[in-house]
Amino acid sequence: MTLDHLTTLIRRKKSMLCVGLDTDLKLIPQHLLAEEDPVFEFNKAIIDATLDIAVAYKPNIAFYEAMGIKGWQSLEKTIQYLNQFKDEAFTIADAKRGDIGNTSKMYAKSFFEWLDFDSVTVAPYMGEDSVTPFLEYKDKWVILLGLTSNRGSKDFQFTESGGRRLYERVILKAQEWGGPDRLMYVVGATHPAELKAIRALAPDHFFLVPGVGAQGGDVREICEAGVNKYGGLLINSARQIIYASGGTDFAEKAREMALATREPMMPYIS
Amino acid sequence: MTLDHLTTLIRRKKSMLCVGLDTDLKLIPQHLLAEEDPVFEFNKAIIDATLDIAVAYKPNIAFYEAMGIKGWQSLEKTIQYLNQFKDEAFTIADAKRGDIGNTSKMYAKSFFEWLDFDSVTVAPYMGEDSVTPFLEYKDKWVILLGLTSNRGSKDFQFTESGGRRLYERVILKAQEWGGPDRLMYVVGATHPAELKAIRALAPDHFFLVPGVGAQGGDVREICEAGVNKYGGLLINSARQIIYASGGTDFAEKAREMALATREPMMPYIS
Repeated sequence: MTLDHLTTLIRRKKSMLCVGLDTDLKLIPQHLLAEEDPVFEFNKAIIDATLDIAVAYKPNIAFYEAMGIKGWQSLEKTIQYLNQFKDEAFTIADAKRGDIGNTSKMYAKSFFEWLDFDSVTVAPYMGEDSVTPFLEYKDKWVILLGLTSNRGSKDFQFTESGGRRLYERVILKAQEWGGPDRLMYVVGATHPAELKAIRALAPDHFFLVPGVGAQGGDVREICEAGVNKYGGLLINSARQIIYASGGTDFAEKAREMALATREPMMPYIS
Repeated sequence: MTLDHLTTLIRRKKSMLCVGLDTDLKLIPQHLLAEEDPVFEFNKAIIDATLDIAVAYKPNIAFYEAMGIKGWQSLEKTIQYLNQFKDEAFTIADAKRGDIGNTSKMYAKSFFEWLDFDSVTVAPYMGEDSVTPFLEYKDKWVILLGLTSNRGSKDFQFTESGGRRLYERVILKAQEWGGPDRLMYVVGATHPAELKAIRALAPDHFFLVPGVGAQGGDVREICEAGVNKYGGLLINSARQIIYASGGTDFAEKAREMALATREPMMPYIS
């Protein structure tokens, strides 16, 4: 998907909402367990119920991998289903991959050829050659970890050197590898002050912002700090939306929660 | 596998060799393509030919993932085959995973429950809660990226702060999370001087050392710099061993290359 197309989607849907498909057999409504592929049926129902509200979907690959071959089959079906609406939503493989160049090429093949996602999240620790193989695919995106939403982000990401924190170095350095038309950053919703400062370092790049809802980030605060002329944010909510109800009304309740999560974003989209 | 057991293996086999199973359909002998699962047949032949020489096997997950569901099935069969010799070799899922705690738990489930590897490689960028879920499994190991073998290691890993480089901080900080009986570090063979300095920071931990052979690291130099009382090194070679021949003699040639790679290690094992 191109930057133009993504921007158009955001304006049309008046939304920067990304729905996190962190689908866990233990948490989905139990009546779905009778289905042949409960995980896919759940995802399909969530997608159908939110496609006019969300601009992006982000399966977290760990949740599928933990279910073994069956999990990978559910993921494959989910992205194939999403790709039937290729113009309607941006897709993110939240995989946090990254390896030496030779190997990153293989990961790029997994997510861009086999599964045909629009983007994949990548960890920056191994540097340039771990990231660039993903950037060789036309209209595909890298979403590089910048400042993450978790407690452990304090351990290394804030380490200062020459007046710059590590996540700032990552955000600046990676701009040499890819422009705002191919590269986004992960910036956690749990750090709104830092998000504002990061916007100054990368005025035109999109940020994928996890950590609203269950992890405590506030949507209005994030928009205030991070919106740009493109919208510039994909604000992810997973558990709070997809598990809004554990009953047969789960899709309807997910829709309500998606609408409620989008609502504070709307004034920020021009 | 326990630390004691690993040390015993190293002494018995007089080896610190890890064989990297970076199995690529394009590079394996073409006569294997007639098999139902060429990747598994290749791995099985390599394992059979080297099991008395190697103390560890390390499939790089990217190579399997890039082949889709079939690739995951080949990986599953490979680890099941390796687990028939559970006491004979240490197994490493080279996956470089790492995510928020809630998600790292899922990755731990993939590699320690579904696939039942002895260890998994983990990226440190997201800090403590991205690593500790892997450490909750008895006799399973985390192999944390310290200083990697690739060119991109220069981008962030050498960043200095308070007199310490980032990889040094990672190596010191992570010792608060796990001792030498659960935690190893990745230290690339392409940095022998740094390897020696890292040994001083972590005298008792094992290092997984990629980058000999195709990437240029020298086995004798690595042993000189990094060996400790336990052996303390798992020296990985992949392409140079597994693709030693592209013909029907591939397993025999892989064995010869494994013997040649082990040879310079032997004087360092007491």
